[in-house]
Amino acid sequence: MFETVELGREISKQEFKERSTKLRQDLLDAQREMRRLGIPTVVVFGGVDGAGKSETTGRLLEWMDARWVKTRAYDVPSDEESQRPDFWRYWRDLPAAGTMGVFLSAWYSRPFVDFVYNQDEGAFYEALTVISTFERMIADDGALVIKFWMHIPSDTLERTLKRLANDELQSWRVTKKDWDNLKRFDDFVNAAEHLIMRTSTGRSPWHLIEGADGNYRELKVGNLLLDAMRRAIEEKEKQLLAQEVWEEELERKNGDAKKKKKKKKDKDNSPAGSSSRLSDSELIVPGPHSTTILDKMDLSAKLGRDEYDERLEAAQARFGHLALKARQQNRSVVCAFEGVDAGGKGGAIRRLTSPLNPKFYQVIPIAAPTDEEFAHHYLWRFWRHLPRDGRVTVFDRTWYGRVLVERVEGFASKAEWRRAYNEINYFESELCRHGTVLIKYWMHISQDEQLARFNARAETPHKQWKLTDEDWRNREKWPLYKNAVHDMVERTSTAVAPWHLVSAEQKRFARVSVIETACRVLEDHLS
Amino acid sequence: MFETVELGREISKQEFKERSTKLRQDLLDAQREMRRLGIPTVVVFGGVDGAGKSETTGRLLEWMDARWVKTRAYDVPSDEESQRPDFWRYWRDLPAAGTMGVFLSAWYSRPFVDFVYNQDEGAFYEALTVISTFERMIADDGALVIKFWMHIPSDTLERTLKRLANDELQSWRVTKKDWDNLKRFDDFVNAAEHLIMRTSTGRSPWHLIEGADGNYRELKVGNLLLDAMRRAIEEKEKQLLAQEVWEEELERKNGDAKKKKKKKKDKDNSPAGSSSRLSDSELIVPGPHSTTILDKMDLSAKLGRDEYDERLEAAQARFGHLALKARQQNRSVVCAFEGVDAGGKGGAIRRLTSPLNPKFYQVIPIAAPTDEEFAHHYLWRFWRHLPRDGRVTVFDRTWYGRVLVERVEGFASKAEWRRAYNEINYFESELCRHGTVLIKYWMHISQDEQLARFNARAETPHKQWKLTDEDWRNREKWPLYKNAVHDMVERTSTAVAPWHLVSAEQKRFARVSVIETACRVLEDHLS
Repeated sequence: MFETVELGREISKQEFKERSTKLRQDLLDAQREMRRLGIPTVVVFGGVDGAGKSETTGRLLEWMDARWVKTRAYDVPSDEESQRPDFWRYWRDLPAAGTMGVFLSAWYSRPFVDFVYNQDEGAFYEALTVISTFERMIADDGALVIKFWMHIPSDTLERTLKRLANDELQSWRVTKKDWDNLKRFDDFVNAAEHLIMRTSTGRSPWHLIEGADGNYRELKVGNLLLDAMRRAIEEKEKQLLAQEVWEEELERKNGDAKKKKKKKKDKDNSPAGSSSRLSDSELIVPGPHSTTILDKMDLSAKLGRDEYDERLEAAQARFGHLALKARQQNRSVVCAFEGVDAGGKGGAIRRLTSPLNPKFYQVIPIAAPTDEEFAHHYLWRFWRHLPRDGRVTVFDRTWYGRVLVERVEGFASKAEWRRAYNEINYFESELCRHGTVLIKYWMHISQDEQLARFNARAETPHKQWKLTDEDWRNREKWPLYKNAVHDMVERTSTAVAPWHLVSAEQKRFARVSVIETACRVLEDHLS
Repeated sequence: MFETVELGREISKQEFKERSTKLRQDLLDAQREMRRLGIPTVVVFGGVDGAGKSETTGRLLEWMDARWVKTRAYDVPSDEESQRPDFWRYWRDLPAAGTMGVFLSAWYSRPFVDFVYNQDEGAFYEALTVISTFERMIADDGALVIKFWMHIPSDTLERTLKRLANDELQSWRVTKKDWDNLKRFDDFVNAAEHLIMRTSTGRSPWHLIEGADGNYRELKVGNLLLDAMRRAIEEKEKQLLAQEVWEEELERKNGDAKKKKKKKKDKDNSPAGSSSRLSDSELIVPGPHSTTILDKMDLSAKLGRDEYDERLEAAQARFGHLALKARQQNRSVVCAFEGVDAGGKGGAIRRLTSPLNPKFYQVIPIAAPTDEEFAHHYLWRFWRHLPRDGRVTVFDRTWYGRVLVERVEGFASKAEWRRAYNEINYFESELCRHGTVLIKYWMHISQDEQLARFNARAETPHKQWKLTDEDWRNREKWPLYKNAVHDMVERTSTAVAPWHLVSAEQKRFARVSVIETACRVLEDHLS
């Protein structure tokens, strides 16, 4: 595989100067366009140390507007990092819309080195699969992903190391590890071949770069990057144009001037990347499910006051104790609450968390995203709040917004919410693989009970803030939501992260039920 | 001090119900006003464990709109936390404009417990001084700061512990530490008295709360909080009104309709809290310094090409080596770059960082704040980027923007930029106290050289992006900037963090000079 990048290609200083002057101008133009269109760029450099990863990164920073480029290289994980799923630190560092992240080895480093030293093929391939899924998700979200594998022949590397070691000023750069790696050079090349073959996809391709000559290497990388940026820009512009034409068409058909205004407004509030929108007619179809899983729920369960007090106290004490045990076993817990408006999420969450030590839990209410959140993949803002080992995070509304409100309201395109099921399953399996206990609740009430609660809210001064016009609007879309919930449960109730449907018609029953469920799940997971 | 809160006051269930219904409505209203006006609230709970800190927090969350309230409690610091200045984690958690942070013990916990166990008065008082400065800064920035010290008598605490220990469901809650603390109860009370006396100020007062009866305690806290919020709202509204009147007055005087428009626009871009603005006439005065420190700089130093190559290579190798040494000694390094536009910051930074391992350094370009940053104290966004021990962070433009561009452009009020010198000195002394090596550069060139560089930028296609209309506008304000720099150096060139004025008239000389300076400073600080 690497014969083609051991040809000894070089570029003279004079030629480099001429060609790079033109190139940097083009790169700056492309960068400006990427910013304008809000396209994030993920550049990955792989390859052995000494093949020019850092030097080429430095050159890109010189050529481009460095304010919008962040370089990311990783050391052994900090405790905050190692106490969360592996990819937490990479999600944290993903570039915002219109900016560029240059990742040195990053998520490839550990699987690559592990394989060289342990030769565990199964683990290596599994890790590469996780990487491919991760990269596909960011590419699907509209990011440009481009990867460069920097290669030099072993004799060149050896010469470089010797030269540095003999230079009084530079000898500190060469460590024992460098010499060890040189001895294993063939193993590294072999691992690289597997890695490249399995993770080079159409949306996130690897480019092999001959790294021996700096001038050649940097021009090559610069030009490939430029091409990729230009293609991304063209694609995005085509997409925007198609969108515009489609919307005009739709308006013409409907002959409705008002619609245009409304649509425009909605769009401003919709998440990044939601480029194509559903027509109203698509939304009115109540979906293929004439009877949903929610219709089959028994909502009649009730608890008397005394039984409630007793079971609540017992469940809270048990839950507090189990949370302590989880902490001692370094397991983190994520409770995810979804449910019908006025389904009683808030009250249930307060009773669930009251036996917990405030040092070790956080409640994260999910409202409109901040602009930093808005400029990233929609899962970014959930990754950033994941708990460290031994802690509990409760999400009041969750990443399922994508397949519920965003689907129903058309804030996410059909393509976006459809692929979200898989993205969510991947996210949750990463959580569980790390050892996090994930508990997902759907709090359900009947339409009549919702009406009664809405009215009660409207009449109680200190509850009025809980009731908004949006709640009434959502209520009208009840069948659409039921349909979306049915699909959601069907596609995301996995063995590692099943849904718990809570009958919330009576608050007492729901509250006890939520805590007792949490206890059962924790008991299953803790040793 | 605590006699007044050992009176055994109680409130019946019935009374609590009546009064709390009214109170929660009022709290919700106040919370809504605080959100509208963008006032952040910092609530601190102190006191011995068992006096109801968590329970009262839970009650506040129930009474208010929990989406805008975050509870913060702290365990032993993570490595990411302990490898940065002590207050890094508190800055990270400060509430954004319009939201509330409830802090359990937080920054008081360690000094308090340390004093009880070590009785080191000097360290205790120093820690309390740092706390007071911190709280004053947030209050100055417009936050409402209110603190509750929860107290119960020792016999009540003892009864509570015994009751819990004998309850099968709750006994896991009582630990050996609780019994130890009970034995030292008098020491805790003594420490609390010192703590409260030294940190209760007009802007961030302590309230003593009798904690034995939950109903009494929670109503008391709720009512005090409500009063404080109402006062904050009234004050802010008065301030806004005064601002409006003042601006109208100014316009009437100037009789200039255009000015209004411009002012309004500027204000939208100005940082949070900059409520009062300077009149133009105040700005045109070139300040008291007819000759500034910059006028006295010798800008004639030059290096020949060969000498440059040689010294650059030597300095880079030396710096790379010193950075490695700093890493081995767990020292972090912060390089802060300020300077005249076109002073060559970017080029100098690239040459400074090129010998560094990208794993261990970050360059942070300071541009317009994101909305999350905008909603916090202006130092928040610098705290968040501080390096961990052993790492290097380079700021391309810095926190000095407050006393440079924000002062000159009037984005910060006179009161704001004037107190910023002290705030900055505090920030930097916290850095240095932690062991960070701080290196501050002002890159200076003459006005002629700037013009030459602007023209060169305008003519070189791949440099045009560096030149904006703003650069030309800033150039017109040269005397105002010189004056601001003079004040800045005078007030913030401290023994622990002196300014290095770099003669940047010739790029070669400046680049070598920057790296050699960094080496000298590091050599001074490393053992």
